[in-house]
Amino acid sequence: MLTAAYTGHRTIDVIEAEPQPPAAGQVRIRVAYVGLCGTDLHILHGSMDARVQTPLVFGHEMSGTVDALGEGVVGWEVGQPVTVMPLAWDGTCPACLAGNEHICQNLDFIGIDSPGALQAFWNVPADVLVALPDGVALDAAALVEPVAVAVHDVRRAEITGGEKAVVIGGGPIGVLIATVARAFGAEVAVIELDPARRAQIAGLGFATLDPRETDQVAWVEEWTGGAGADVVFEVSGAAQAVLGATSLAKVRGTLVVVAIHPTPREIDLKRVFWRELRILGARVYRRTDFERAVELVADGTIPSDLLITKIVPLAETQAAFEDLEAGRAMKVLVDVQVGQEASA
Amino acid sequence: MLTAAYTGHRTIDVIEAEPQPPAAGQVRIRVAYVGLCGTDLHILHGSMDARVQTPLVFGHEMSGTVDALGEGVVGWEVGQPVTVMPLAWDGTCPACLAGNEHICQNLDFIGIDSPGALQAFWNVPADVLVALPDGVALDAAALVEPVAVAVHDVRRAEITGGEKAVVIGGGPIGVLIATVARAFGAEVAVIELDPARRAQIAGLGFATLDPRETDQVAWVEEWTGGAGADVVFEVSGAAQAVLGATSLAKVRGTLVVVAIHPTPREIDLKRVFWRELRILGARVYRRTDFERAVELVADGTIPSDLLITKIVPLAETQAAFEDLEAGRAMKVLVDVQVGQEASA
Ligand SMILES: [Zn+2]
Ligand SMILES: [Zn+2]
Repeated sequence: MLTAAYTGHRTIDVIEAEPQPPAAGQVRIRVAYVGLCGTDLHILHGSMDARVQTPLVFGHEMSGTVDALGEGVVGWEVGQPVTVMPLAWDGTCPACLAGNEHICQNLDFIGIDSPGALQAFWNVPADVLVALPDGVALDAAALVEPVAVAVHDVRRAEITGGEKAVVIGGGPIGVLIATVARAFGAEVAVIELDPARRAQIAGLGFATLDPRETDQVAWVEEWTGGAGADVVFEVSGAAQAVLGATSLAKVRGTLVVVAIHPTPREIDLKRVFWRELRILGARVYRRTDFERAVELVADGTIPSDLLITKIVPLAETQAAFEDLEAGRAMKVLVDVQVGQEASA
Repeated sequence: MLTAAYTGHRTIDVIEAEPQPPAAGQVRIRVAYVGLCGTDLHILHGSMDARVQTPLVFGHEMSGTVDALGEGVVGWEVGQPVTVMPLAWDGTCPACLAGNEHICQNLDFIGIDSPGALQAFWNVPADVLVALPDGVALDAAALVEPVAVAVHDVRRAEITGGEKAVVIGGGPIGVLIATVARAFGAEVAVIELDPARRAQIAGLGFATLDPRETDQVAWVEEWTGGAGADVVFEVSGAAQAVLGATSLAKVRGTLVVVAIHPTPREIDLKRVFWRELRILGARVYRRTDFERAVELVADGTIPSDLLITKIVPLAETQAAFEDLEAGRAMKVLVDVQVGQEASA
């Protein structure tokens, strides 16, 4: 079978490998689609070399079908469509013992800290499998993982209906957060610099803002009757966005930090104090977030067609990252099925 | 009567004034003691000149007795000991309508935005009065306002018992937060640079740390069995403290921003994300916080004797600020009663 592995030095190699039978407690998945994300790009850029072991078969946004069951595994059928919640926790650290297994202090993020989905057959512990409904489109189902991120973010913000939320940054995660927040009952505005993305997002029915042309504070004040936004999601990763974000939130409003900021950022703590704001970090997801994400993909709430801008065969994985880097694509999927026959 | 007023240019003038009868709905208080705080120092330094109107009779931490009731005021008796919760809200802004009157978008902070307590007789709206128990020491009762700040901060952090909390900055508010957090059931460590303050705080039974001598992250890890602190209170106002604070908190831990940071501060948002931290602004208090503060002062939980380092007559108000500026004093009170006879 073919696998795609990060081998260091900004290189992805397509490597032949022999499919292995699932060990006891594992399930072997026939992988269908794998989504590429910003974290994968960080890996490719070498930013995570201190963390990853090369060669790393990466990929953690995926869909596929059950191919074989290891010893002792029950409850799954060969051919059943599935996705994977790529987290393995130790169950013993203070975070786990407090019920926060998803951010275990010794978390194994599958596809980063251990082998991922960019291979025709992938063995994973049975307990990370998440069932997909029969008949779901497997390309759309590869979006479940990023949708679960969005569900987690929206739940962390305690959006339950009637809120006004601002999303700063209209990339794939920003669009998913906007979509999920709306599905949970919020009215959403998206701040995005790129005009093509703004047009796409407006096409989904969201208010959009170019912060260079519109005074975003005045706009949000007007939009919210002088109160400010209930929730602001910082998804851009930009220092300037963080500095401005606190001015958009209402008294006792919430700022959710979704983007990863590699270096410390300036925050207007006087505003945090003055309005008694709440800033929340939000990372990955819980199983309930994943299950809700499956529903949102399956019922068509998630605009999969807009988000999936390209599907490439596994052999073109490296090239596909160029589209991501150039910001030309929302979401690129790798079709892991194509070309495997020649290899096997 | 004598009043102490900020008249601009780093000057406090003692000014003669005629006591006025209370208007309808007001109560006239015979002021006993007034505490001086960091905000008053900011006023004196001119940092709040854009906000305050001079001459400003300032002072908002106080105790006294009811002297006269204006028309229509019921429920208070002449001679009754009282303090004042110095907030007046509009009741109509989005914050008020959402139940957050204490951080009304048009809040009048009495003693800053309108005349304060540094005068022998002070007229205030009846609804800002807070009853003190008979027999309470009026000097200690002048601490109720800063204690209410501490109660608000501790409640904002949702301390209910069993937590481990770190207080960064062992000035008067830091000591009060540590004391109140302990009264609410937390175990508390205080990080403070000044050795004399550390000794005082240790004398109150708190663990203390000099961050220049002890690796505070390692210390907190050890203290919390590898988890990190449940709550970190940032009371120092120092940029370096903010940057380090996120490293002290456990997964899903809370950082409460108590100090006023006049300029934006760098925060380690990667850590906020990674541990799903929560950062909360906390400002002033609600009436329930004030009432709890009265109890904590009256029952001796608050170490008034340690905190009140000096009591000066009103004529020496300006000189008293020098002790505050030099960091020589925890809390300086002005005895407004002394010297009034000669004046009247
Ligand atoms: Zn764990
Ligand atoms: Zn208001």
